[in-house]
Amino acid sequence: MDVTKKFQLAESEIPRQWYNIVADMPNKAKPLLNPQTREPLKPEEMEGLFAKELVKQEFSDERWIDIPDPVRELYKMYRPTPLVRAYALEKALDTPAKIFYKNESVSPVGSHKLNTALAQAYYNSVQGITHLTTETGAGQWGSAMSIACSYFNLNLEVFMVKQSYEQKPYRKFVIGSYGGKVYPSPSDRTSYGRKILKSDPNCRGTLGMAISEAVEVAVTKPNTRYTLGSVLNHVLLHQTIIGLEAEKQMEMAGEYPNKVIACFGGGSNFSGIAFPFLRHELNGQKKVKLIAAEPSACPKLTKGKLEYDFGDSAGMTPLIPMYTLGHDFQPEQIHAAGLRYHGGGQLVSQLKSDGYIDSCEIDQQETFKAGLLFARTEGVIPAPESTHAIAATIREALKAKEAGKSEVLLFNLSGHGMLDMASYESYI
Amino acid sequence: MDVTKKFQLAESEIPRQWYNIVADMPNKAKPLLNPQTREPLKPEEMEGLFAKELVKQEFSDERWIDIPDPVRELYKMYRPTPLVRAYALEKALDTPAKIFYKNESVSPVGSHKLNTALAQAYYNSVQGITHLTTETGAGQWGSAMSIACSYFNLNLEVFMVKQSYEQKPYRKFVIGSYGGKVYPSPSDRTSYGRKILKSDPNCRGTLGMAISEAVEVAVTKPNTRYTLGSVLNHVLLHQTIIGLEAEKQMEMAGEYPNKVIACFGGGSNFSGIAFPFLRHELNGQKKVKLIAAEPSACPKLTKGKLEYDFGDSAGMTPLIPMYTLGHDFQPEQIHAAGLRYHGGGQLVSQLKSDGYIDSCEIDQQETFKAGLLFARTEGVIPAPESTHAIAATIREALKAKEAGKSEVLLFNLSGHGMLDMASYESYI
Repeated sequence: MDVTKKFQLAESEIPRQWYNIVADMPNKAKPLLNPQTREPLKPEEMEGLFAKELVKQEFSDERWIDIPDPVRELYKMYRPTPLVRAYALEKALDTPAKIFYKNESVSPVGSHKLNTALAQAYYNSVQGITHLTTETGAGQWGSAMSIACSYFNLNLEVFMVKQSYEQKPYRKFVIGSYGGKVYPSPSDRTSYGRKILKSDPNCRGTLGMAISEAVEVAVTKPNTRYTLGSVLNHVLLHQTIIGLEAEKQMEMAGEYPNKVIACFGGGSNFSGIAFPFLRHELNGQKKVKLIAAEPSACPKLTKGKLEYDFGDSAGMTPLIPMYTLGHDFQPEQIHAAGLRYHGGGQLVSQLKSDGYIDSCEIDQQETFKAGLLFARTEGVIPAPESTHAIAATIREALKAKEAGKSEVLLFNLSGHGMLDMASYESYI
Repeated sequence: MDVTKKFQLAESEIPRQWYNIVADMPNKAKPLLNPQTREPLKPEEMEGLFAKELVKQEFSDERWIDIPDPVRELYKMYRPTPLVRAYALEKALDTPAKIFYKNESVSPVGSHKLNTALAQAYYNSVQGITHLTTETGAGQWGSAMSIACSYFNLNLEVFMVKQSYEQKPYRKFVIGSYGGKVYPSPSDRTSYGRKILKSDPNCRGTLGMAISEAVEVAVTKPNTRYTLGSVLNHVLLHQTIIGLEAEKQMEMAGEYPNKVIACFGGGSNFSGIAFPFLRHELNGQKKVKLIAAEPSACPKLTKGKLEYDFGDSAGMTPLIPMYTLGHDFQPEQIHAAGLRYHGGGQLVSQLKSDGYIDSCEIDQQETFKAGLLFARTEGVIPAPESTHAIAATIREALKAKEAGKSEVLLFNLSGHGMLDMASYESYI
């Protein structure tokens, strides 16, 4: 009775370097632009916003970047995370496909976000920064930054999309328990927030607005920097630890994935699991199909336009060359708040434009159905975001069944849904 | 920078047998009594309530009992669980004590309860039972039974203490997501529930009342059995997998605990971690001090009387020889709903009476303070129940500091508190 099979690496096998896909991309992405001058952004122009070392990573084309020891030590709290062969899900689907998932939900905050939060807090801390700001949608990122700041003795202000702040109170309690301060966005703490509230006092917020508020505080408060949980190159870089571990674990399982699947918000968990596999294709070795699972309510890769756009709503960030639905796009209030971001980021967008990434869009009903099936077979209640990856995987597994062919599918379980139970309840 | 250190066993080292402490007890516990005749209860009298194999275990004095393969396979979903050296907590306390904890919060339902839920569902399933009933306080046990029943295709009805049903809605959503039916207790689904509601329509419920309701349904509905998440010998037996794993992991760490600490509700997580270590003392080998951490609101071991008492409020269960506050005791509405049970069970009570178990009582403020310190140092937000074990461990660590002596402390982190964030919020 093979109900489940975990592939568990030893702690000593936690990777010692992150993988930077920029080194292997056939076409480099266009540069970020300074929003005022429209000239390519220079690293030093970002240093008021981000820690210097993170800016260096943002512009780096080195293939491998060392993980600092203190960060790698903290990774040991929850890493290596398990790779699981989802026998029970396969059986429920009666599919010849072999389904594997990387379980990032085992981190103490319940998602993959901690992988970059620890790195970002560390680099800010060694630079002598004392305050950080950030935004959060569903709250996963805010929770991760809060515990990371607790480890490195940094103060943290989190602007949380008002919709989530009210709909997901447990998340803000988690942020508070770890010591971070959390405010509903739009708030009256920034001039941008006050402007929004003046024109629309009932505004429920978006991730773009929350970013604008966090950025405003970071650039106006002394010894303060901003941190972002997705989209940017250095964030994607830190998340490659997911795929690098998964690669070793797939080897333990004696398999290589035909398809690698992840949900897509700003690209961090997607790139994290996918890029290490994609590198073998870019280097002319093994082929792999990458599938970004988007919500129908916010399908930037599937339906967006590739152009320069802002990372936030107010237009305070650099201009990013990316697939975007427009920086003022306000998606429907779906439960997967972490996927309600308007743009696809520089690296993912270039790779998609070059034909290395596929995407699909999935409506909310299908994702919750998939999430419940997963919970009842594999045991873990997935985050609403992660249910998109599961739903896309189920689609592929059923296609394989129809075609009668075996296929190896790997998806990333980016987080658990224990704090999203109200969403499940409203689905049920 | 040693911030954390996990000791991780291979899957192949998941124990193949549970440990039954009855075989090693110097004084056997007095028998359970039939509540009508007051004669020692015969196994066959319990078979209408529990699966036969569980009844056999309840009366067994075999030292080792085989874990069935299908149960051990399902254990692999989350076992072996990590043993962690809590360096960050030690540092925060500036203590010479070495603190270890067994992390049972990594199970998909977030607590140790799954260890026995899987076993109980399995034995009922092989007997051909189709319906199970149970009660739940905080909801941890109900969640565990719900996923276990989903694996073995059993229907489940859960009576949830009304206080928790309303205060912790996420837990009931979890139970529902896995497929179980959940009702607030007292309910109008049983004659006992209706009787309570008639005399007190605003009754908030107790674990004892919920047990009475679940038992009533089990004995009146065809092909139905009852399951209990703590107190009984077979439940404690299944939980010894915690301590048996921890023993191997302490060996990996090159240490043996001077003190083993766990929170105490009905005794399942306490016995689970403690009994395997106690066996070496009973066999004249290594000494160990066991500490049961109770809430001041419900200190059955610390302040109860050792006598025969019912396991439920209505007086439907067999009479159990145990430390008890009385089966009609209604403890304060503390957040640690899982510790609001009136009695200590047969085995623990005998061992306590024989001097093998110490207990202490801790008030709610101290436990939440301990829980927050643990979250900010070790990363995991603990369940309100588990914060009692942490608070007791911190007391011991500070005593060691005062005495200037090194000591090895091991406690059980029975569950995480992600679904109890409202409790933390009201503390903060």
